[in-house]
Amino acid sequence: MAKSVAGPEIEKLIQLLAKLPGLGPRSARRAALHLVKRREQLLSPLTAAMAEARDKIGVCSTCGNIDSRDPCTICTDHSRDQSTVVVVEDVADLWALERAKALNAAYHVLGGVLSPLEGVGPEDLTIRQLIDRVEAGGVKELVIAVNATVEGQTTAHYIMDRLEGLDVKVTRLAHGVPVGGELDYLDEGTLAAAMRSRTTL
Amino acid sequence: MAKSVAGPEIEKLIQLLAKLPGLGPRSARRAALHLVKRREQLLSPLTAAMAEARDKIGVCSTCGNIDSRDPCTICTDHSRDQSTVVVVEDVADLWALERAKALNAAYHVLGGVLSPLEGVGPEDLTIRQLIDRVEAGGVKELVIAVNATVEGQTTAHYIMDRLEGLDVKVTRLAHGVPVGGELDYLDEGTLAAAMRSRTTL
Ligand SMILES: [Zn+2]
Ligand SMILES: [Zn+2]
Repeated sequence: MAKSVAGPEIEKLIQLLAKLPGLGPRSARRAALHLVKRREQLLSPLTAAMAEARDKIGVCSTCGNIDSRDPCTICTDHSRDQSTVVVVEDVADLWALERAKALNAAYHVLGGVLSPLEGVGPEDLTIRQLIDRVEAGGVKELVIAVNATVEGQTTAHYIMDRLEGLDVKVTRLAHGVPVGGELDYLDEGTLAAAMRSRTTL
Repeated sequence: MAKSVAGPEIEKLIQLLAKLPGLGPRSARRAALHLVKRREQLLSPLTAAMAEARDKIGVCSTCGNIDSRDPCTICTDHSRDQSTVVVVEDVADLWALERAKALNAAYHVLGGVLSPLEGVGPEDLTIRQLIDRVEAGGVKELVIAVNATVEGQTTAHYIMDRLEGLDVKVTRLAHGVPVGGELDYLDEGTLAAAMRSRTTL
């Protein structure tokens, strides 16, 4: 769009929308137009929801989940088995496991996987905090639910090494997760089945 | 996502993001997570841009373009040939023609096309306002730049009939626009060429 057509406000809105995953420059223009045409039904409520998220949502200092409270809803939910901690790479994986109702337990979000190529080392993930959680006591089982990728498995082995000598049972998701597959893309049935048949490492 | 996982704020954000064109429930979850993880770089500026659009952007009462002023930037641009008015279905088409630098003229946004099947009649479009603009004088040429679809062509013919007896030259985009094609999907070269060879109806 030429600079003079619709003013800097729309221009700015399109630029920022184009930074969302799944939206390119063209779909960002469509989204901007869609929003402006639906001021009351969509633009206003979405603006309010984003302001709310901006002001209220943060990272849980215990598990790395995102929530409006810290510790998060999951960490403070006493109907969950807080002695079982499911270790995931990303909040998206936590959401996927929750949608699958895979296990009514706690979580630990690593914030990624070890990747020497991309310069991601142990200190870039929440591995130290995970070990601290186990050392503090009360954790009986860690379910390592990282992706079945090379980096995911490397990360799992690194965590196993660090847990050496600590009194905790470590399990992983059952095979059933396709090799090379990512959790967030799997159907809920497969995820639930893989969780049910998790095996001791 | 189960209701209890990340609180109602994220839930609401995902629901609203899923209403944007191009985003389904799954990509809306990814977008929400992407936003929350980039509070300073993306969530805050996008919230501000949306609030700005919500508060400032409206529809031009002359041409139907959207802008922060009324009459809009295009209608008040005296470097444009205001006696030539390009009639388009939607603001997205106006943007597409502007990106193609097709013609340095004014516009009239119809707000859709006639469609008996979908219950869209002349009174649902800005056809009355277009006739008023022509009758008010000063418009020498109308370039009918509606989509090359059945509804688009029906709308063009309806407008021609309504212009009967008025002293205005009516042209249309040259063939070159693929039959059945929509303006907003064409490359800029094709659009510019079609505009250059526009013919008298
Ligand atoms: Zn937590
Ligand atoms: Zn205007």
